[in-house]
Amino acid sequence: MSTAGKTITCKAAVAWEASKPLSVEEIEVLPPRAGEVRVRVTYTGLCHTDYYTLSGNDPEGAFPSILGHEGAGIVESVGDGVEEFKEGDSVILLYTAECKQCKFCKSGKTNLCQAIRATSGQGVMPDKTVRFRARGQDIKHFMGTSTFSQYTVVSQHSLVAVDPKAPQEKTCLLGCGVTTGYGAATNTAKVEEGATVAVFGIGCVGLAVLEGAKACKASRIIAIDMNDGKEDWAKRFGATEFINPKKLERSIVEELVERTDGGLDYTFDCTGNVDVMRQALEACHKGWGVSTIIGVAAAGKEISTRPFQLVTGRKWQGTAFGGTKGKTELPGLVQKYLDGKFKIDEYITHTTTLDELNKGFDYMKAGDCVRCVANMQ
Amino acid sequence: MSTAGKTITCKAAVAWEASKPLSVEEIEVLPPRAGEVRVRVTYTGLCHTDYYTLSGNDPEGAFPSILGHEGAGIVESVGDGVEEFKEGDSVILLYTAECKQCKFCKSGKTNLCQAIRATSGQGVMPDKTVRFRARGQDIKHFMGTSTFSQYTVVSQHSLVAVDPKAPQEKTCLLGCGVTTGYGAATNTAKVEEGATVAVFGIGCVGLAVLEGAKACKASRIIAIDMNDGKEDWAKRFGATEFINPKKLERSIVEELVERTDGGLDYTFDCTGNVDVMRQALEACHKGWGVSTIIGVAAAGKEISTRPFQLVTGRKWQGTAFGGTKGKTELPGLVQKYLDGKFKIDEYITHTTTLDELNKGFDYMKAGDCVRCVANMQ
Repeated sequence: MSTAGKTITCKAAVAWEASKPLSVEEIEVLPPRAGEVRVRVTYTGLCHTDYYTLSGNDPEGAFPSILGHEGAGIVESVGDGVEEFKEGDSVILLYTAECKQCKFCKSGKTNLCQAIRATSGQGVMPDKTVRFRARGQDIKHFMGTSTFSQYTVVSQHSLVAVDPKAPQEKTCLLGCGVTTGYGAATNTAKVEEGATVAVFGIGCVGLAVLEGAKACKASRIIAIDMNDGKEDWAKRFGATEFINPKKLERSIVEELVERTDGGLDYTFDCTGNVDVMRQALEACHKGWGVSTIIGVAAAGKEISTRPFQLVTGRKWQGTAFGGTKGKTELPGLVQKYLDGKFKIDEYITHTTTLDELNKGFDYMKAGDCVRCVANMQ
Repeated sequence: MSTAGKTITCKAAVAWEASKPLSVEEIEVLPPRAGEVRVRVTYTGLCHTDYYTLSGNDPEGAFPSILGHEGAGIVESVGDGVEEFKEGDSVILLYTAECKQCKFCKSGKTNLCQAIRATSGQGVMPDKTVRFRARGQDIKHFMGTSTFSQYTVVSQHSLVAVDPKAPQEKTCLLGCGVTTGYGAATNTAKVEEGATVAVFGIGCVGLAVLEGAKACKASRIIAIDMNDGKEDWAKRFGATEFINPKKLERSIVEELVERTDGGLDYTFDCTGNVDVMRQALEACHKGWGVSTIIGVAAAGKEISTRPFQLVTGRKWQGTAFGGTKGKTELPGLVQKYLDGKFKIDEYITHTTTLDELNKGFDYMKAGDCVRCVANMQ
């Protein structure tokens, strides 16, 4: 019996308030309105951004809400006017939407679609209402996706249909971490053949930058992490060298500048630490080095450097979702994955279930977790 | 009678110590050694960098020295092995050298030739000795040029021959300010047709950025200065709007973002003030705005911003000498000037002489001076 047009009762992990564990309980998911799609979420990754918001440190975090933004699933039903999707489509949810109509999408210069940005930042749908209810209360959306629920409702701009042959327990990771790191190297920095690269912070995103740099045929790819356990990981994803800065007798900047005859062509910060962001910039080669910030800094933190660093030819930039346009580019990445030319499986070190979603955050904090994927069904 | 091979006695303005006026007196200029060229300096501009070093605030400033880096003149003689120049050539001196051989020159990515950088930064010739003597003492060189002397000796990498039809009392300005501003727009930022541009600080360099943005066919060019007297100047050089931030009831960033529907495509700091550099970055459009730092900040000053500014697509970069390769590009700019397609005369508001070179700094501080050119003969 079709559920289309009806409110669905299902389980979700609700974030009732900051710095409390998620509460797995029954919620109601209203039908999609015009321009919206309701999705049965099958798998979701857990990302540091979810944890950051849950911790209460995100000044824009709103509660109660349903977190999660790295998910895959199946279209359950569509609202009025939605022609791009139909029931049964295999989809990846997109926290960076792509409407193909706004000034940003049409600029050809950025992936930061603004079609639904204002409302998704406030935890509501574009019509400023919500589709989640629990314990008689409205529950807010998160990043336009809210994948920590068995069903979610999203704008038609916030998902992409991909080849159904690709397993959703893997493709969910394309919704954030893997795409972000890979795209930072391939889309944002556009690392060229023969270039030298350094990546600070070897978690999921850092590993994906290594993979992207390797795909771009960089000549040297230096991975930097304070955890020696990341060396093997880094080398499997393309690093040619590994440095633990805690073991150096000089600064990491001096070490890198010395090792590379003047500095790197491209550096990437995947730590979110503003001091590391500065090191990444200052380890760039005079005249042309480009440093790309990927990590999300804590609220209120600022980056600094002497302007001389820029006047002498270094460039400082950032990336969100790896500069990737979700609708335009994810089907191609899924195809690369199916062709064996793009890693996803290798990032998954832990799995959990919706009932034990909080465990995923414990794994994340333990340090040996690259990515944890939760089975939501 | 040829002076080649002989020590020349002439007049120069010597900077004996920091924060004292220049002393115009007789000095000895030794003959050029291998790879060097001796130039009779005919005209020199006075630039804020000369004043900054004279003030003692430049931590790398060395005394006694002969300052000046924006000069034109005539080749008097050449040292062994110099084939590119001959006696009588009309030349512009280059504080940013171009050797066409070093890693930097060959990179295709930067104009920051490093062939003589280490020694010129120390105030000596590439063989670590000096060619100036006064009162029985060695006198240091400055920026590889030392144009505040009737004769100077420079590396063959530090000058370019140009069409002798171009008057040296004008072309001297291509040695720094005009080229720096024009190149920042045309070479470094590569402003494209239809783009929106804002320029902070309307001195010589700022005016040249306006001219460069106009040459690139920018659609809106907003000039910003705290001195209302700069409005007419800005509009003559291509500005379509002028803002005095002191007269606003909101911040200049809010004003610019509002006026331009989200911010500028390109901004330029020509002030050297790190707070203005931040404003220039934050007035850039989300997703693609690029801010270029041109001004030289005071020693120890740092730029800061929230990394979110970069993660949401703004880029922060800098430029030296407008990204211009002196030997490769200045002959073309001189030709444009001769063809009436490039302003130089219009920047010159004051003139002085070698004997009254200190007056040039007084003009500079008075606020109504764009550029002062000194006749050195």
